[in-house]
Amino acid sequence: MPITLQKNDVKDSLTVAAEIAAQLSVHAVSRDAEAGIPTEEVALLKRSGLLLLPIPGEYGGAGARWTEIYPVIQALAKAQGSLGQLYANHVVLVILGEVIGRPEQAEQFYRLTAQQNLFWANALNARDARLTIAPEGDHFRVNGVKSFGTGVAVADMNAIGAVQEGTNTPVVFVIPQERAGVRYNKDWDNLGQRRTVSGSYTFENVLVTPDELVGPPPVAESIFPTLVFLMSQLGKIFTYLGIAEGALAAAKDYTTTSTRAWINSGVETAAQDPFILHRYGEFWAELQAAIALANQAAEQIQIGWDKKLDLTVAERGEIAIAVSAAKVVAIKTGLNITNHIFDVMGARATATCYGFDRFWRDLRTFSLHDPVDYKCKEIGNWFLNQEYPTPSQYS
Amino acid sequence: MPITLQKNDVKDSLTVAAEIAAQLSVHAVSRDAEAGIPTEEVALLKRSGLLLLPIPGEYGGAGARWTEIYPVIQALAKAQGSLGQLYANHVVLVILGEVIGRPEQAEQFYRLTAQQNLFWANALNARDARLTIAPEGDHFRVNGVKSFGTGVAVADMNAIGAVQEGTNTPVVFVIPQERAGVRYNKDWDNLGQRRTVSGSYTFENVLVTPDELVGPPPVAESIFPTLVFLMSQLGKIFTYLGIAEGALAAAKDYTTTSTRAWINSGVETAAQDPFILHRYGEFWAELQAAIALANQAAEQIQIGWDKKLDLTVAERGEIAIAVSAAKVVAIKTGLNITNHIFDVMGARATATCYGFDRFWRDLRTFSLHDPVDYKCKEIGNWFLNQEYPTPSQYS
Amino acid sequence: MPITLQKNDVKDSLTVAAEIAAQLSVHAVSRDAEAGIPTEEVALLKRSGLLLLPIPGEYGGAGARWTEIYPVIQALAKAQGSLGQLYANHVVLVILGEVIGRPEQAEQFYRLTAQQNLFWANALNARDARLTIAPEGDHFRVNGVKSFGTGVAVADMNAIGAVQEGTNTPVVFVIPQERAGVRYNKDWDNLGQRRTVSGSYTFENVLVTPDELVGPPPVAESIFPTLVFLMSQLGKIFTYLGIAEGALAAAKDYTTTSTRAWINSGVETAAQDPFILHRYGEFWAELQAAIALANQAAEQIQIGWDKKLDLTVAERGEIAIAVSAAKVVAIKTGLNITNHIFDVMGARATATCYGFDRFWRDLRTFSLHDPVDYKCKEIGNWFLNQEYPTPSQYS
Amino acid sequence: MPITLQKNDVKDSLTVAAEIAAQLSVHAVSRDAEAGIPTEEVALLKRSGLLLLPIPGEYGGAGARWTEIYPVIQALAKAQGSLGQLYANHVVLVILGEVIGRPEQAEQFYRLTAQQNLFWANALNARDARLTIAPEGDHFRVNGVKSFGTGVAVADMNAIGAVQEGTNTPVVFVIPQERAGVRYNKDWDNLGQRRTVSGSYTFENVLVTPDELVGPPPVAESIFPTLVFLMSQLGKIFTYLGIAEGALAAAKDYTTTSTRAWINSGVETAAQDPFILHRYGEFWAELQAAIALANQAAEQIQIGWDKKLDLTVAERGEIAIAVSAAKVVAIKTGLNITNHIFDVMGARATATCYGFDRFWRDLRTFSLHDPVDYKCKEIGNWFLNQEYPTPSQYS
Repeated sequence: MPITLQKNDVKDSLTVAAEIAAQLSVHAVSRDAEAGIPTEEVALLKRSGLLLLPIPGEYGGAGARWTEIYPVIQALAKAQGSLGQLYANHVVLVILGEVIGRPEQAEQFYRLTAQQNLFWANALNARDARLTIAPEGDHFRVNGVKSFGTGVAVADMNAIGAVQEGTNTPVVFVIPQERAGVRYNKDWDNLGQRRTVSGSYTFENVLVTPDELVGPPPVAESIFPTLVFLMSQLGKIFTYLGIAEGALAAAKDYTTTSTRAWINSGVETAAQDPFILHRYGEFWAELQAAIALANQAAEQIQIGWDKKLDLTVAERGEIAIAVSAAKVVAIKTGLNITNHIFDVMGARATATCYGFDRFWRDLRTFSLHDPVDYKCKEIGNWFLNQEYPTPSQYS
Repeated sequence: MPITLQKNDVKDSLTVAAEIAAQLSVHAVSRDAEAGIPTEEVALLKRSGLLLLPIPGEYGGAGARWTEIYPVIQALAKAQGSLGQLYANHVVLVILGEVIGRPEQAEQFYRLTAQQNLFWANALNARDARLTIAPEGDHFRVNGVKSFGTGVAVADMNAIGAVQEGTNTPVVFVIPQERAGVRYNKDWDNLGQRRTVSGSYTFENVLVTPDELVGPPPVAESIFPTLVFLMSQLGKIFTYLGIAEGALAAAKDYTTTSTRAWINSGVETAAQDPFILHRYGEFWAELQAAIALANQAAEQIQIGWDKKLDLTVAERGEIAIAVSAAKVVAIKTGLNITNHIFDVMGARATATCYGFDRFWRDLRTFSLHDPVDYKCKEIGNWFLNQEYPTPSQYS
Repeated sequence: MPITLQKNDVKDSLTVAAEIAAQLSVHAVSRDAEAGIPTEEVALLKRSGLLLLPIPGEYGGAGARWTEIYPVIQALAKAQGSLGQLYANHVVLVILGEVIGRPEQAEQFYRLTAQQNLFWANALNARDARLTIAPEGDHFRVNGVKSFGTGVAVADMNAIGAVQEGTNTPVVFVIPQERAGVRYNKDWDNLGQRRTVSGSYTFENVLVTPDELVGPPPVAESIFPTLVFLMSQLGKIFTYLGIAEGALAAAKDYTTTSTRAWINSGVETAAQDPFILHRYGEFWAELQAAIALANQAAEQIQIGWDKKLDLTVAERGEIAIAVSAAKVVAIKTGLNITNHIFDVMGARATATCYGFDRFWRDLRTFSLHDPVDYKCKEIGNWFLNQEYPTPSQYS
Repeated sequence: MPITLQKNDVKDSLTVAAEIAAQLSVHAVSRDAEAGIPTEEVALLKRSGLLLLPIPGEYGGAGARWTEIYPVIQALAKAQGSLGQLYANHVVLVILGEVIGRPEQAEQFYRLTAQQNLFWANALNARDARLTIAPEGDHFRVNGVKSFGTGVAVADMNAIGAVQEGTNTPVVFVIPQERAGVRYNKDWDNLGQRRTVSGSYTFENVLVTPDELVGPPPVAESIFPTLVFLMSQLGKIFTYLGIAEGALAAAKDYTTTSTRAWINSGVETAAQDPFILHRYGEFWAELQAAIALANQAAEQIQIGWDKKLDLTVAERGEIAIAVSAAKVVAIKTGLNITNHIFDVMGARATATCYGFDRFWRDLRTFSLHDPVDYKCKEIGNWFLNQEYPTPSQYS
């Protein structure tokens, strides 16, 4: 039975997220090692009520603002990067109907999700065109393979991207978990974000009904639907920040309990070592700056979201720049922290049993989603030449 | 005649600051070169009405919140680092009566400043104990020298720190500009912040009346008065940010109008060069993070300010850490930008006539006020050991 | 049958090392994953003849100079960090007799090693005092546990540190592999350097004869024996450099064969991407600087080695500083490269099958041997105050 | 009367350079401030005998190797960046005849320079095509303006680049100081390298005789002449290193004599402060790496120089990469040091009287000669694609 979170109940959602984080931390190292299916994680999310955060109150959700939702991603990622990513995807997917769907579809998705407390996932990666959809009578059949299906194996609802057979026209449809013919290939074995089942999925003659096709949206020419890419990007950024925060918390725990003062340090405990203190101070300060910038971007996302179809190209462009800036800073800061926590913990902290490398592996893996160098270039191009990045899955 | 700024009139105060900035930019290079007395700058501040921003509405001020005042410092510093510093000092000095003065003194300072549109400065540096105050009949006489008297030569009201003759007891008093016996030694010749007249001042038998002595405050044991040090530190931080922002704006102007595309770049204009765009993107992103963090600290300052005597040691400690973090990030970011703007402008931008080094000189000079390494250490000590920095002029 | 390398046959030893590296590269990923016992690696070293590089010609060795030996460490570490570390230990251990042994012991160790092509390892970590040695009749018995016994499980000869039972007096002895009572606990499971069997070893009533005790050296007061610590430190540094070089080579191979050009890059191949080229250029330049500095330190080590007992405290101090500087630069450079190679390879390079994280894990693990911050402090103390670091295992 | 330095007399040339450096240091701050004409500096160079270092022994020079000459540049630049640049230009200009001249010209230039102890300068910047040369009877006349004429106002011999009137064909000629019609416009007022008279020069009907035209070289198709550009680039790099070294030496002097220990540092003197020591250690280590890499490039230059017309395109390419790498590292290291020496000296070190900013200004100005980003790109392109940079003035 989900806890019903009330609208604007910011504190509660963060408290709830922190509770989940605490529960997950116990198994974080072993689950990272085994990779495997995040069944327990999704179960926890379901019990928490957090799945309903973005759903408007009139449909039975918490109607939370994005400035409230993103920090929840961060809190979850702090415990486990994979969970942050799964949840970050979910919150953007449940609004997909409102963004690119028909009006009744938006309502249907919201209501169904709220009533049944559904978890969403997707396999939408546009660069993989091996999945095809073809009409068959009054419905459709889907066949082929799709990679990077983060969470699909454990989700109640999956948004899938395919191309129309014979053409390259992209189609998005949403199907429930129980739909026959979808098989996870258990081939997600990457350095980080190991509990996301982000591998490939084979579709064999999968039935899709016409009402499961998403769209078309009511106003084709609006820039508003492309806001969803930025909302998605910001979800990744808060996942990065959570991972970095988790790294810092784990390091603090180790330094204060296990690190021995260095023999020439002249201090009794590692927690008094001037260089260790200096490093922690710099880590923390830089992380706060990255978080502050991401929170600022979240505010801009909310403003853009509130504008709906009135969102202008320029407004969307400013948000894109804000999100890109948050990404550049979050990645740089996070990589620095996850790389250098070892310098404040010492040699024994490299024992595999601690799993302290998982923060770096998670961040390193997930931060490569699209190249950060091009984010810098886009920001520069806007700053110097007043040009907005072309809307795409990446910016 | 000052423009009367209305309470919470954020936009207006920033607009006004931007107007001053625009006027000052015209002479920024020559004034930096000549150093000299910032008479025109103070006159501009007076005409602007910005001097009254922090004064409560009931005394005739604008009653602006600190979240509004600090960005004004930044906007002024963007045009001229010295002006940022002068104004940053002023806004903290006009509330000095409320913080460490007798209740009637707070009211008196507010009312007088608002009525006469007064500009404040100070010579309070506690590490210089050469100025002494001694009783003479029913008043006092002050003699000696005081260094780092930023703005004293041009201020209407000056807060001065001295020690009681024969003891080391520190005394603060406030005297008007016209008071006889104070002489500026015209010895401020440093690399940056050259229009701040921050040199030494000689006091010869200067009269001070008992009511000009500031304090004692009503509740001696409260931590609240020490908040003023953090408010002052944050003023410096926003000055740093303004300087960095000014550097970036000046560079942009030069790159887009004067820098030639590099011969092997394969692009037509410097503003299309991928490496130049990349650098600008990184500069801008990092600067936004630093600004976001400083704004967050400003919010915490405001909350602390609103608590007045109820401010707890722990609350004050949290604010101190937030301010220190903002400082670490602002300095690192600002030094990077002011150092590397030349890489996006090219060799010819080093001609003295442009004065593009003034940003680095201003920031480099002012950022040494107290060592940033100890800020990192203090943050680390709080993060690891839950210890707050000891309240002082520096933290 | 070992290849007999001739004196000063620099090119050959590097060629041989490169051949081993090529053979090892084939299994580098799987061996890293399984950890396990480096039997094949040691067998390769034996066949190569490289074990005899440091042994003087008159005893049947190659009599190579240290400026020749260290680059061999680097070449081996380029293929596999663990092998670099094992070999780096060996080359310093085979000279142990000359440094801290009796004159006849030096000769005996050299001759025996050369004749039988022996591989050396050690468990000498002074911070672990759990191993005791006690007299029994005309010999000794050793009991207890010793950690960080890198290579002991696979070495022909092992230098072991223990303390005299009842006192804290440290004793070093050398015993052959076949000596009864030594058991490897198979507990080396750390993030990196996984093929070094650096876990703990249990000694049960192990016999040690008086002639197996190393020392005393002929001139007790000489500083010369402490040169061995610097020689050992420099071996670690060349291992770091090899790891970084290996990372760069692996990345190059992947970028040029597998990385796809980014969609907005405007270039055909990833190897033409300006930002990718820029990153490689910076990686390479910085790595060359680190290598050049380490080679310079190797020259100083050689000079110090040639001085033998005439080595002065000041000369030893200068070498210590040179080695520390090389360490600071090698670690910083190496961590940067092993962290950021992913930015030039892209997201798909995080698949576990490639094992591209092993470079970072190896370097991260091994670079924590002793804190780099204290290296910086020691160099600073010498530069500012003309004080040499106190000779120890670490400096 | 010049000291006659003997061939391979490395130590002496460095000793002599250090003596000049010591003499120049006395006036370094005031001369930087006044800019002006480096008459005293050139006079010192003449007395030193260092002008003859590169000239082969058979013509009366010292016949020094480039591995000896470059460190002399560094030693001079340590005292005064401008002097380093002037001397770096000179050593490459005196060999110009051998590189691009007729055989008899090479000999003539060497002999004349050695006999008369001549100082050379140039105005060769190819991007400024305002200077024209036209035939008039049996000689030529030169008219127009040429910028960036470093040292021309004080040199005995000047190599000048012009274009043939009516065509764009570049012509190089060498004329003595006393040649009528050349006027320095006293317009060098840049942030750094202020004693180099690098401004513009006006030529009014200046006579040039046919034998003063340099070239044509005997073997037109050889790559060898383009080595001179790399030799020139490396001269700049050693100037950067000298400036950084000078900054570090000046800072050390100030920290140990003038900086006060920070109030919370818990140490007696600034030279014991852990963070100050750490910074110095890092500065020094990184500078040594940059120097080691530059010295390695100098060895490669010497090898290339010795090959003369046998130098292959590939060999030249490898040297170009080595020089570019040295440049990237030298600039990064030098900017870091000259920027951050203030952090180890403190606020009072920003007084203009010390002139501690001159190191940053010198390096910042001179390091912009050509964009370092393109050096990184070129190295990357070679590392990834085995392509050498196209020979040019810059690479």
